[in-house]
Amino acid sequence: MVRVLVGNDWSEELEEPAGTGWAVQRLAWFAEDGDILVLPVRPEEEFLAYVTSLTGTRRASLRILVPPPGRVGTGVLTADRLADPGFLVALRDLLGGQPADEIFALWPDAAVAELAGALGCPEALQGHGFLGQSGGLLGSSKAVFRAVAAGVGAPLPDGAVCADPRRAELHIARILDDGSPVILKQDYGSGSDGNEIVSRTPDVPLRGARQIRVLGAADSGSGGVGAGLRAYLDERWDWLTAGGRHRVVVERYHPDSRAYFAEFWLSDDGCRLGGHGEMQYRPLPDAQVMPAPDLDERQLHTLVEGGRRISEGLRAMGYRGVLSADAVVTPAGEVLFTEYNGRATGSTHIYEIVGKRVVGEGFGRDRILLERVWPTGWEVPSFGAALRRLRESGHAYDPETRRGAVVLAAYHPGRKGVMLCFVDEDLESALHREQLVGKLFTAG
Amino acid sequence: MVRVLVGNDWSEELEEPAGTGWAVQRLAWFAEDGDILVLPVRPEEEFLAYVTSLTGTRRASLRILVPPPGRVGTGVLTADRLADPGFLVALRDLLGGQPADEIFALWPDAAVAELAGALGCPEALQGHGFLGQSGGLLGSSKAVFRAVAAGVGAPLPDGAVCADPRRAELHIARILDDGSPVILKQDYGSGSDGNEIVSRTPDVPLRGARQIRVLGAADSGSGGVGAGLRAYLDERWDWLTAGGRHRVVVERYHPDSRAYFAEFWLSDDGCRLGGHGEMQYRPLPDAQVMPAPDLDERQLHTLVEGGRRISEGLRAMGYRGVLSADAVVTPAGEVLFTEYNGRATGSTHIYEIVGKRVVGEGFGRDRILLERVWPTGWEVPSFGAALRRLRESGHAYDPETRRGAVVLAAYHPGRKGVMLCFVDEDLESALHREQLVGKLFTAG
Repeated sequence: MVRVLVGNDWSEELEEPAGTGWAVQRLAWFAEDGDILVLPVRPEEEFLAYVTSLTGTRRASLRILVPPPGRVGTGVLTADRLADPGFLVALRDLLGGQPADEIFALWPDAAVAELAGALGCPEALQGHGFLGQSGGLLGSSKAVFRAVAAGVGAPLPDGAVCADPRRAELHIARILDDGSPVILKQDYGSGSDGNEIVSRTPDVPLRGARQIRVLGAADSGSGGVGAGLRAYLDERWDWLTAGGRHRVVVERYHPDSRAYFAEFWLSDDGCRLGGHGEMQYRPLPDAQVMPAPDLDERQLHTLVEGGRRISEGLRAMGYRGVLSADAVVTPAGEVLFTEYNGRATGSTHIYEIVGKRVVGEGFGRDRILLERVWPTGWEVPSFGAALRRLRESGHAYDPETRRGAVVLAAYHPGRKGVMLCFVDEDLESALHREQLVGKLFTAG
Repeated sequence: MVRVLVGNDWSEELEEPAGTGWAVQRLAWFAEDGDILVLPVRPEEEFLAYVTSLTGTRRASLRILVPPPGRVGTGVLTADRLADPGFLVALRDLLGGQPADEIFALWPDAAVAELAGALGCPEALQGHGFLGQSGGLLGSSKAVFRAVAAGVGAPLPDGAVCADPRRAELHIARILDDGSPVILKQDYGSGSDGNEIVSRTPDVPLRGARQIRVLGAADSGSGGVGAGLRAYLDERWDWLTAGGRHRVVVERYHPDSRAYFAEFWLSDDGCRLGGHGEMQYRPLPDAQVMPAPDLDERQLHTLVEGGRRISEGLRAMGYRGVLSADAVVTPAGEVLFTEYNGRATGSTHIYEIVGKRVVGEGFGRDRILLERVWPTGWEVPSFGAALRRLRESGHAYDPETRRGAVVLAAYHPGRKGVMLCFVDEDLESALHREQLVGKLFTAG
């Protein structure tokens, strides 16, 4: 069994790439003995040694391959790098002239299907046909999401998919008239960064969007269209549509909701529930808790079964890979699906590897995971220093006690920090540990 | 049982509408006793009387409703017309305060779902959720088509879906290097008018595309990219992508292929084969023959089963309505799917109503249908005149003999003619009748 793991990122078919090779090093969590890892940059050896020490994969058995720089340099695995003849020779060499048994990629890109083709083993990549015709993009479209979710009967917030400002105006005014704020979403935004909230009043807590725009009742029209709303759309339409290229989702915004996900692995055999959790925002993504806390039985059932139906719809078209279905739970307790993400997400390595493999059976029984985006004000000079401080303070994850902090990712020079995941018996303990760990990384 | 039939056209979400109300009058073929027909213009009474005389529907039982002019006038049923308050009052009135039992539209538009909502009977429109979130657009996307067809295992010509000229260039050069011409398709083109062929040699018969561009071997690169190909893409990219809004399909072009369709009706109950046929081009669509002629058993099976798999993929996502899967049969006998059309097509009323209802059981057994686009050089001053000449010459369709010419559509003032369909025992007889009928409409 030889597997090729591809540490690619957000598709260049959607956006000109701008990665630094940092985030995709999380690929190391998925590595098993004998795997070949294709990465945009050589991973930090210390990170690799650390991850494999926790997963039990033998570091020495892993082969790392970094293709020559591509049209945008070394930050991301662009299609030209994955098709580089010298790289392909080296990869075939590592495969010893055998086809790969499995190809796993973080992003379901056509370039990965073309890599499978170039290696002569399309069957090693499930969904090869669909992905090769760029079907993977459908799994990141919020417009397609709303159609499929509605089509399979998953509950949605009121809203519409809008190809022109006229239609957007009508639906925004309609929802504002109903007394609710509205969230506008770029079709292919991610990390809430492509979302904006429009409201008649300023008292809306900003979560899951980059900003809130207040349009007075006169501005935003009553039972119709107001000058302020039209001016807002005139100003923002180009941004909302990525320069006229995509459609815009208009959706009722439910303030004070909590955000959850249920993630599935879609294969030729069916749809397997991977995991679920809560996503916290302030206002952009800040933390995750797995498994999903504070849901009653009906809500968890709606989240998982809605996610499964959506996954089955995509699977019937030919999609294979990871698909996370996201939903909000409103203050009234309703579960409403808000988007999906068809790729290995920022949650996948956490529940699937840290949870199920590192923590093991107790994950979700006597242990929960709290992931925290490196907080502003915390600082550490390197991955090694972060690990050392955790180990010396006794806060590093200990397989014996199945408690402690796991470093999830390689060092981020911009943030001067690392992503952390706290493993404890409950959220309270994890938050307490986070406070203690904070002292290791703050001057105070 | 009260049905509302909506004579809408190509979605305004895709293209600014420019219809004249002519083509959608074919809605009359679908009418049954008691139906309410919503049309952009009042249909020609003579056409309506003629169609109902053939279908057996009682003309007097039909109610016709034309909403007030909309933002682009009277040519098409834009969303504003379908949401016009006065129109909605009139429609509710015709419905006598009851919900409609069924809503049938030529185009699966979100505006129709919104009409169903405004009438308080979303359940009357199958697929209401999916269509309301503009899912119907997915059924007209050639990019989505290629992903779904590949995903369900329907055979496709070699090719790719390209979001940028770089990727298009690679795939075009690759296929040209393989020795084949390439057809480029706008994502949402229709009637072959959004297609162009690129070739290394000028000897390619032009069919199913508006033009052919010849790039010499030096121009188009060998094993890579040539200056001529790059210049061609520079020049045409804007047109190919509708101003950067959509992706482009790059596909191996198989000269001297024949083009077929298999059309399905997707409902809550499943996918029903509606009909199949051949489409003839010179170079744009010129004629159709139903049922599909000259296919061997294996080819017909591949056409119908491939079309069914594609339909089932779309149905699993929530699509409901008509879906035509198009394929070419290459000179080598291969069946390769080339696009789909998720709407009531230019074939639907022909096989479903003229074939199955007017001709009846004999359709496809002892009778075939030949539809001919009104030929250049033929001329007639009105629908009535066309019908009179056909009747007086004995060439009008006769229900007794189940032979003759059916006038398919209202009068087209631009073409000075009507669409004709010849019903005969075989293609030879139909072509012979066409020759005789031609004399009625030509000076010679």
